[in-house]
Amino acid sequence: MSQPSQLPPDQIRQILAQVVENSPADWILLYLAMGTMKMGGHRYGAFLDAATTAAKLAIYSSFLECGQNIRKTGFLYHVEPKRVKAIVQEIQTAVAEGQSLKVLNSKEPYYLIALPFLWQEEFPCGAQESRVRQPGLTPGERKAIEDSLPPGAPKARILDQVAFHELIEKLHDLSQKELPAAQRMPFSDALMMHIKFRLLHSGTVLQVDSPLVDIPLYALASESYAPKDERERAFAMIDDVARYFSILQAWVRSEEGVLRGVEVFDINLDHRQEALQELDVLLRTWADKYHQEGGYPMVLQFAAGTREGD
Amino acid sequence: MSQPSQLPPDQIRQILAQVVENSPADWILLYLAMGTMKMGGHRYGAFLDAATTAAKLAIYSSFLECGQNIRKTGFLYHVEPKRVKAIVQEIQTAVAEGQSLKVLNSKEPYYLIALPFLWQEEFPCGAQESRVRQPGLTPGERKAIEDSLPPGAPKARILDQVAFHELIEKLHDLSQKELPAAQRMPFSDALMMHIKFRLLHSGTVLQVDSPLVDIPLYALASESYAPKDERERAFAMIDDVARYFSILQAWVRSEEGVLRGVEVFDINLDHRQEALQELDVLLRTWADKYHQEGGYPMVLQFAAGTREGD
Repeated sequence: MSQPSQLPPDQIRQILAQVVENSPADWILLYLAMGTMKMGGHRYGAFLDAATTAAKLAIYSSFLECGQNIRKTGFLYHVEPKRVKAIVQEIQTAVAEGQSLKVLNSKEPYYLIALPFLWQEEFPCGAQESRVRQPGLTPGERKAIEDSLPPGAPKARILDQVAFHELIEKLHDLSQKELPAAQRMPFSDALMMHIKFRLLHSGTVLQVDSPLVDIPLYALASESYAPKDERERAFAMIDDVARYFSILQAWVRSEEGVLRGVEVFDINLDHRQEALQELDVLLRTWADKYHQEGGYPMVLQFAAGTREGD
Repeated sequence: MSQPSQLPPDQIRQILAQVVENSPADWILLYLAMGTMKMGGHRYGAFLDAATTAAKLAIYSSFLECGQNIRKTGFLYHVEPKRVKAIVQEIQTAVAEGQSLKVLNSKEPYYLIALPFLWQEEFPCGAQESRVRQPGLTPGERKAIEDSLPPGAPKARILDQVAFHELIEKLHDLSQKELPAAQRMPFSDALMMHIKFRLLHSGTVLQVDSPLVDIPLYALASESYAPKDERERAFAMIDDVARYFSILQAWVRSEEGVLRGVEVFDINLDHRQEALQELDVLLRTWADKYHQEGGYPMVLQFAAGTREGD
């Protein structure tokens, strides 16, 4: 696929830095937006929902801290008392009914993760059978189409567009059943295209354009919607940041047994690799030294790299 | 102030954990919402604006990466092409005009930070003068009111409600001048109450209810809107998380010279303090060892604490 006007990541970061400048909270939101949507496949609407929910939960927690004073909570957040009341009721109902308010959960939307399983369940294919069931093809032509699949492709039937779209719709319906009524989203052509595009974009599904058939065919190309390499690291990053944030919350509350630090230094680039390797060993050795089976659960998180924006 | 139904932080966290569960991206949003609004004093509306802006910037960055393909970008985010086009134009205009899109900047809103300066400028008070200028009071009564101020209170006149409200409005007008027209917010009674409440809540301004006058008076109680203790750490936390997130972005992109790690271990609580002190020294010694004046700028961030949600 040729992309003539594609900008390199460095240049994109520079453009973003121009408008976000040195505002750390805005940067956290931007990194998170890119991590969950661009890399993670969540919808724009899901991200905005999640941010709104987080803001409501913050209001609710202040409400609890303020002795349940609606007026005072409203002043603190610059929200009308009527609106505070509605937010408090919404959260209270969710808590009372054991509803989940998580939006960006499971790293990937369910309809993306579950597809390979549902496909193999609905359209299984015996080891000796051909994946291609489209009519009007000779055994040799079927084999030619099968041979165009990547080596690791699961044994599951190749679908035409109608069957593939029906599978996506079925998946969507299944995913909606898990949600409380208020969070459900009707199926639409636009949503179908979004899901289809994500599946093709991630390499989970492959579009087979064979000269032997005049319609596009779709093949399951992977056992799981597994983000690879960069995307896998992007998920680990979100986990890391959430855990790091959580440790720092304890540090803000001055809890015991928390250490937080930043070391700022300049390095001779010839020694950087050696220094980082030494650091890695140093920290593992330290954790091993103090590890005691059955002890109190601890975690240490660290990251070292280029210092920016001095 | 008695707050009979105030819940302890631990219990509030448990309630929040029930609804957010184990969704790291939702937790990051929640921590950020609490950090910027509850601790930082930003408005509910400002947080939602910032989240929307971040989402738009993510879309814009995908647009640039996709070879400026509006349709493809729309599929990726499940956003109508028309809407993608509007978002792209909005960001392009901001970039071209050198506009700032940061929303949660300066840690605190300008109108809170600037108040002590403007107050002292507009209502100065000589060292020998009384801060109290309200008519109908004897010198002894004025002194009694002044004596009720905390020792560190700056020398600035004590204001009645009308003057205090006018000062807040003036501050708001000044803060709006810095903003592009689209981001400006009209002044309102509700906004006035929000700002006033934040100033009183933080201890920057003190309400003086003297039996000698039948109207409330307001005194400047601090030289700066300085968040103390817990709130100061909350700002450092947001800085830390943004920087940590930024290092991990480089790790996701597999850049050279980045180290990211997590050590999971259990500890004998009797040795925890000793272990953390040792770690602190270990890391400082490591950074000192490799520090070289004029070298390549590096930063190491670390945090250790209780491991949750095993």
